[in-house]
Amino acid sequence: MEEIRTIRNYVAGEWREPDASGTLDVENPSTRAIIGRVPLSTAAEVDSAVTAAGRAFEGWSVTPVTRRVEPLFRLLRMLQENEETISRTLTEEMGKSLPDARAEMKRVYQNIEAACGAPILQNGESMIGTATGIDGETIMAPMGVFAAVTPFNFPAMAPFWFIPYAIAAGNTFVCKPSELTPLTMELLARFIDRAGFPPGVFNLVNGDKSAASALIEHPGVVGVSFVGKSDTCRIVAARCAENNKRCQAMGSAKNHLVVMPDYEHIGALIRNMSTSCYGCAGQRCMASSVIVGVSEEVYRRVSDRFIEESKSFIVADPLDPDMADEPMLMGPVISETAREFVYRMIESGVREGATLALDGRDPADLEDGYYVGPTVFTDVTPEMTIYKTEIFAPVVCILKVDTIDEAIGLVNAHPLSNACSIYTRGGYYARKFKLEARCGMIGINVGIPAPVPFLPFGGIDNSMHCDIKMQGKSAFRFFTHEKVVVERFWEE
Amino acid sequence: MEEIRTIRNYVAGEWREPDASGTLDVENPSTRAIIGRVPLSTAAEVDSAVTAAGRAFEGWSVTPVTRRVEPLFRLLRMLQENEETISRTLTEEMGKSLPDARAEMKRVYQNIEAACGAPILQNGESMIGTATGIDGETIMAPMGVFAAVTPFNFPAMAPFWFIPYAIAAGNTFVCKPSELTPLTMELLARFIDRAGFPPGVFNLVNGDKSAASALIEHPGVVGVSFVGKSDTCRIVAARCAENNKRCQAMGSAKNHLVVMPDYEHIGALIRNMSTSCYGCAGQRCMASSVIVGVSEEVYRRVSDRFIEESKSFIVADPLDPDMADEPMLMGPVISETAREFVYRMIESGVREGATLALDGRDPADLEDGYYVGPTVFTDVTPEMTIYKTEIFAPVVCILKVDTIDEAIGLVNAHPLSNACSIYTRGGYYARKFKLEARCGMIGINVGIPAPVPFLPFGGIDNSMHCDIKMQGKSAFRFFTHEKVVVERFWEE
Amino acid sequence: MEEIRTIRNYVAGEWREPDASGTLDVENPSTRAIIGRVPLSTAAEVDSAVTAAGRAFEGWSVTPVTRRVEPLFRLLRMLQENEETISRTLTEEMGKSLPDARAEMKRVYQNIEAACGAPILQNGESMIGTATGIDGETIMAPMGVFAAVTPFNFPAMAPFWFIPYAIAAGNTFVCKPSELTPLTMELLARFIDRAGFPPGVFNLVNGDKSAASALIEHPGVVGVSFVGKSDTCRIVAARCAENNKRCQAMGSAKNHLVVMPDYEHIGALIRNMSTSCYGCAGQRCMASSVIVGVSEEVYRRVSDRFIEESKSFIVADPLDPDMADEPMLMGPVISETAREFVYRMIESGVREGATLALDGRDPADLEDGYYVGPTVFTDVTPEMTIYKTEIFAPVVCILKVDTIDEAIGLVNAHPLSNACSIYTRGGYYARKFKLEARCGMIGINVGIPAPVPFLPFGGIDNSMHCDIKMQGKSAFRFFTHEKVVVERFWEE
Amino acid sequence: MEEIRTIRNYVAGEWREPDASGTLDVENPSTRAIIGRVPLSTAAEVDSAVTAAGRAFEGWSVTPVTRRVEPLFRLLRMLQENEETISRTLTEEMGKSLPDARAEMKRVYQNIEAACGAPILQNGESMIGTATGIDGETIMAPMGVFAAVTPFNFPAMAPFWFIPYAIAAGNTFVCKPSELTPLTMELLARFIDRAGFPPGVFNLVNGDKSAASALIEHPGVVGVSFVGKSDTCRIVAARCAENNKRCQAMGSAKNHLVVMPDYEHIGALIRNMSTSCYGCAGQRCMASSVIVGVSEEVYRRVSDRFIEESKSFIVADPLDPDMADEPMLMGPVISETAREFVYRMIESGVREGATLALDGRDPADLEDGYYVGPTVFTDVTPEMTIYKTEIFAPVVCILKVDTIDEAIGLVNAHPLSNACSIYTRGGYYARKFKLEARCGMIGINVGIPAPVPFLPFGGIDNSMHCDIKMQGKSAFRFFTHEKVVVERFWEE
Repeated sequence: MEEIRTIRNYVAGEWREPDASGTLDVENPSTRAIIGRVPLSTAAEVDSAVTAAGRAFEGWSVTPVTRRVEPLFRLLRMLQENEETISRTLTEEMGKSLPDARAEMKRVYQNIEAACGAPILQNGESMIGTATGIDGETIMAPMGVFAAVTPFNFPAMAPFWFIPYAIAAGNTFVCKPSELTPLTMELLARFIDRAGFPPGVFNLVNGDKSAASALIEHPGVVGVSFVGKSDTCRIVAARCAENNKRCQAMGSAKNHLVVMPDYEHIGALIRNMSTSCYGCAGQRCMASSVIVGVSEEVYRRVSDRFIEESKSFIVADPLDPDMADEPMLMGPVISETAREFVYRMIESGVREGATLALDGRDPADLEDGYYVGPTVFTDVTPEMTIYKTEIFAPVVCILKVDTIDEAIGLVNAHPLSNACSIYTRGGYYARKFKLEARCGMIGINVGIPAPVPFLPFGGIDNSMHCDIKMQGKSAFRFFTHEKVVVERFWEE
Repeated sequence: MEEIRTIRNYVAGEWREPDASGTLDVENPSTRAIIGRVPLSTAAEVDSAVTAAGRAFEGWSVTPVTRRVEPLFRLLRMLQENEETISRTLTEEMGKSLPDARAEMKRVYQNIEAACGAPILQNGESMIGTATGIDGETIMAPMGVFAAVTPFNFPAMAPFWFIPYAIAAGNTFVCKPSELTPLTMELLARFIDRAGFPPGVFNLVNGDKSAASALIEHPGVVGVSFVGKSDTCRIVAARCAENNKRCQAMGSAKNHLVVMPDYEHIGALIRNMSTSCYGCAGQRCMASSVIVGVSEEVYRRVSDRFIEESKSFIVADPLDPDMADEPMLMGPVISETAREFVYRMIESGVREGATLALDGRDPADLEDGYYVGPTVFTDVTPEMTIYKTEIFAPVVCILKVDTIDEAIGLVNAHPLSNACSIYTRGGYYARKFKLEARCGMIGINVGIPAPVPFLPFGGIDNSMHCDIKMQGKSAFRFFTHEKVVVERFWEE
Repeated sequence: MEEIRTIRNYVAGEWREPDASGTLDVENPSTRAIIGRVPLSTAAEVDSAVTAAGRAFEGWSVTPVTRRVEPLFRLLRMLQENEETISRTLTEEMGKSLPDARAEMKRVYQNIEAACGAPILQNGESMIGTATGIDGETIMAPMGVFAAVTPFNFPAMAPFWFIPYAIAAGNTFVCKPSELTPLTMELLARFIDRAGFPPGVFNLVNGDKSAASALIEHPGVVGVSFVGKSDTCRIVAARCAENNKRCQAMGSAKNHLVVMPDYEHIGALIRNMSTSCYGCAGQRCMASSVIVGVSEEVYRRVSDRFIEESKSFIVADPLDPDMADEPMLMGPVISETAREFVYRMIESGVREGATLALDGRDPADLEDGYYVGPTVFTDVTPEMTIYKTEIFAPVVCILKVDTIDEAIGLVNAHPLSNACSIYTRGGYYARKFKLEARCGMIGINVGIPAPVPFLPFGGIDNSMHCDIKMQGKSAFRFFTHEKVVVERFWEE
Repeated sequence: MEEIRTIRNYVAGEWREPDASGTLDVENPSTRAIIGRVPLSTAAEVDSAVTAAGRAFEGWSVTPVTRRVEPLFRLLRMLQENEETISRTLTEEMGKSLPDARAEMKRVYQNIEAACGAPILQNGESMIGTATGIDGETIMAPMGVFAAVTPFNFPAMAPFWFIPYAIAAGNTFVCKPSELTPLTMELLARFIDRAGFPPGVFNLVNGDKSAASALIEHPGVVGVSFVGKSDTCRIVAARCAENNKRCQAMGSAKNHLVVMPDYEHIGALIRNMSTSCYGCAGQRCMASSVIVGVSEEVYRRVSDRFIEESKSFIVADPLDPDMADEPMLMGPVISETAREFVYRMIESGVREGATLALDGRDPADLEDGYYVGPTVFTDVTPEMTIYKTEIFAPVVCILKVDTIDEAIGLVNAHPLSNACSIYTRGGYYARKFKLEARCGMIGINVGIPAPVPFLPFGGIDNSMHCDIKMQGKSAFRFFTHEKVVVERFWEE
């Protein structure tokens, strides 16, 4: 029997045994097997990571940008070569299907690729002649030590929304991954370790909320990237503001899919929608969990077809060899706590009068993991708790409206409308929707409108506390400050 | 005798008489004459302005950007044609010299000019082929009602750091100017009124801290621009973060001028430094108030020459006809309170051991206004209160260091180092300073490194609470959110 | 009776009487009245203009960009204030309707507005750390004297595609307008004269091909903007290449309108198409002159409705007071020569087998001007001369195809496909068309897809000889060269 | 004895045996050994390459940009892994030192890295609301088949100035390398072959001027990148213009190094200058071959020290194992023809009155290769042939002037002033020089101001026939046309 290993921290270029401050078990949610132990790092351990990062900043921030991207190119290659190993680890601790894990890794690569553009994307501006004999220049200057506190649902991608850009831009970094899924980031850190960064440029500390707080509050940290629940985002953002730190805090979501009467290709559409709702068992900020049919007829037809499609999903352990690469496979939710919350939500839906058209509770023969099957509510109204709350599970609410204006009204009234999509074939409604729907990310016939890493990513309102979005050029703006130089030399 | 007029608010395209909630006197600081009364607007009046702006947003945000800049072009022309009238009002209530007032207006014009670039600067990106058949697009989308709370020292420029960009970008606006200098903005609003904006796009409410708070806290406001003391900035920023509003809060400054031994043109240099220290009686965030001589010899020579130059400034009422356009004229500080604070600071300098090489207290024959003459401390050390505190007056501290590294160390240790400048003829030290000095704005042989409005403006650390700077392209980023569209159409 | 005035040149800030080298009459094409005389400037006169521009370049190119835009802002205002006068002159010599003349002026304004963005749009890039201690910088440097030879059909807009950008960027300029319509540019030059540019920054020389050649070949000219026939463009471009001059040469066009079967709003569509075909009597490079119906049914329906709509146009003198602001008014073509060519083309169409569904020759009661009424050919095939040739008149060819691929094939096979448009309601065909149709400018439900001056303008293939397009940011690239600075200072 | 191999062409994804049209020997210039045979491809072979590229364009141009960069990332890695093999081949056929060959490969990598930024750098713009309900969009659209004719002196870098960008942007490519150094590109093509591009995306044809002409004139080629002598550039550019093809033609150079009296660090400076003059035996367009001393004293001192430094260069076979990595090693010029030309030039210098201070002809013991040692002329004047002509060899002219204005005058009067550098410690002269010297690339204390591939590269005047420069963002502009879409959908 394999011994259960305790994860280590990575600080100042070294793998560090945790202090005796305790550990938590890491479970495989598909089997409840214990697959590791995550240390609960103390404030002192967090401090040593920030201190190491602070020291590394001195040299790294003045390393030419052309040099800073070299280890990123190497890291990219190593991750691509080890995709299968990483994906399996990711699936084992998180529960998403292997194809979903591999798709997550593709996003990791593209974020690194985008960050490798630093020698162009980080350039400032030069203005000759702001006045006679005086020139202006802007410098996108690195700022210091940045920190990220990342969630369980994207154990690889979420940290890589931040790490490559922050580092390419000349900052140093401390990452604290979710204590529910720390194995993937530990594995990724092994490749970072071999990519050739100077010690301290990247640091990994494990732990729970207490370590997260210590990191966010640390005076040596100049900026924080956080992904979690909206309520926590608000607290993190306020604490950062009080201490004049940069902050990007990405929170909860309740994304709507609006179906117009002119849609065609109903098969493609229903498949697209179900992928959005059930991928990663609904545990992603870009997952849709609300379907809005515009007109009685659309509502009826989409409900029927969507419920039918939902039944064809297979709920199973994604590492079951018989299920390998099964496209319609759905794994468990992350934990017992999560499943209990989902059940409570389903009960509230029934209690508040929605029709439970498909009940995913207690799928047969799956006693070992935290499984919830596809669940669909029809006759949902905006006052219901299941509509107002992010459930973060394969639970879908279907609503009916009469016009596109009503549909946009729903989207805009929901404070967690991170992303939203419309299905239509005509250009007019597509334009109207993209301009009027108040979301960060808009899909036109795309159920998961997650922008590729070359474009900005992020919500608005309660879904996101930040001024500057993630990914691409925006990421370089978040991880630098715009220094301005005004220069003149007197004639000699 | 002319009657004292009470200023009105401008809401929804109309000039509104204030409620009976009280007024404050507006004084000419050069003469103590009462020149107006500023109403203390109530929360209800603030609410009506925000509501008007909210209503106007619906139409304005979808007005084509090519149309939105048209009234700005007209406004620019009207302000240029009325420069003298506006400048005199500005001088009358604020006390800066007429040339300084005119220079301030030039910045107003350039901010409008930069904002007129909206039809290019607000464009998003288009990405063909994020994946097969799928395209991406970004939209710099207007957000809603923005508000500004602006300070007394730049009654015209400070509001125009925000108004033209916010409005050009499709937002609507509520401005609350300083209750010490509200006349200029009222006058500017008259031109805004005639420029052709739809009612409610721009709104003006007057008042004190209570009105400011009501505005900042109003749920209808999506973002706040604030200029004031650093301590207030921190509070404003935290309140905005809690409510997920955008915030730019520009605070206090203690700007350093570093003189290297290789400087030449000592005459030009000393004149440049004195303009930085004494312009607007030292009441500007870009004013320098610390001179650092690198080497004993430089410290000596610069101290002597600077003190000598300081004596040649003329302290007088800037509207005294005999003083018209006097280049070395310096007016009063803004108020009795301000002067008392300056005096306390001077006393603390003496008490803590600095040498009061030039004492500007109680300049002769100027009993009517709040005058403080050029004041110079030598033998200043970093622990002294006069060094640590923003005095916002013509009070200069001179320090000695031995090396450029020490000088940069001073700059970087000061939490209020908004801007800083070096005087040198060589390229090597210039580069070293611009890269290593941790300030928002760096001058090379330029005492007031205020970037023209076509470049970003803003400090870092305690001088500025924001992620996105003011002016130029940055302003468009602050006043929009980056919406992303992911789009596909199925084959028909 | 008013005396016929001879136009003057404007060189080095002075209005110059022409040499005795002869003149040509300028006719009002609506009435054949002689309304001016245009001098045939000699090579010596051209040389004096280029020399003046060359001298002015020395000072202008180092004037701060913030200053260079000031006269442009003034010019903008003056032109807006004199729109009616300029529009009438334009109509008088060119024959387009007054609303079309005013619309042309709007484009003039927007080109100036875009050029006023120079203090941001001309900025270069700054790269810190290309290698250790070495920085890079790019400068969009002005180049010298640019020249334009502009056509009769846009006497105001065509010169302003170039002048404001070239000058804002720090170059100086010589313009030779069409000898058929020189009065407008002379009038515009009077406002340029009063806008406050230093003498020689802008210069105007009049004349015919001989003056054009002298200007293009002048060794003091670094770049040429030309608008004319494609055959001439080829020659101009080759001559410029031999002499290593920049060149933008915009040539002939045969723009297609493709109508898909899913179109709705046939009324709006037909109106939109007729405006494209008949505005300015078809004399614009963005005019459409080919309609392609996708399917027999569409071809039939569009043909019938378009012919009907064509009959409702009123052919008349646009300055006839009874016709003031008549929206469906169409004036004459530019000259007897032009009309004779149109007639020959119509005859060839009949001869080669097309159906002359509407014959616009010899409209009743219009003996005095060079009028041609709306003319429509159906049953047109790609081999016919009327399809292959740019007629530059209100002569429309209608073709039938069976699929969108065939329609795109037609567009892509035509060497003069400057712009093209599709009418469809669905997003799929719109995307397919915009990606696959090989044109410079693509319209989706827009008959005249002329980009606003904030976006680039220009064709490809035989319609345009250039690497860099006109308008907006592109214009700044054409009028500057990208100078790169690589900089290091040794430690002292 | 190893058999002499004949190089193959690479067309449509296959290695093709050449037709029987003849071959040329490829010599190692250090030893005169025959190391390969290059086929003289016929017009038919060129045509088959262009045709293959044309076919590949259909699929490649619509492949998502995110996919198009994937093979480039793989190619980058393979080249880095094989750097030593490639560098040795490069040195063997070209004669530059191994460190120079490796440095050339670094530029290859960085050009690929810059091109990998395509998913961001190729994005167009999106403008919402050009008018009511109408939007604008620009697309940087690929154009078709591009071709390059590249020179002997950078057998690896010169093709990679073009290939990665053209291909990343969606075009397909045909490259014809120099017949003097074809082995390197053949080797590079083997890696391209394995990188995963679809067949026909990249094609290689070998040959001499005849193949070059066939390629440039081929109607299937939409644009040409050429590097060679200025006279040929002129012809190539004119032919391209006549056929409306894009053209970048980089020609001859005579780069100046200007030394100001305030320079310090004379040792570093002299070493920097000698590297510029003698690297690659002076055979690079960025090599300096003119030194200008500002003042008699500077002229004297720099001459003396530079001659002394020149003597310390070792002229030898760069593959001689004893010389491995010798930093001051200089190899031969490329051919007997080249050496004869150099000798004629040296003779003309002597004849026209320059002082031959160091004579590099016939270096001892080097009978087997085309060696020329460091050669220095003093007392050179601008009328001399050695000053006016690009010698492309380690032959340096030293001139004296009295002022910086005179020095800039020299630079600006020379039609081949591709790059130029100033040595000074002061910021004033550095700025004056960078603004006033009319060159494409300016060095400040940098003898070879070759911009890293993230910045544009290119000369002006006779050194470069093009509107758009090479490398970085500029390269994407050259390899695309800016398509504009104007779009509206009618309300449904």
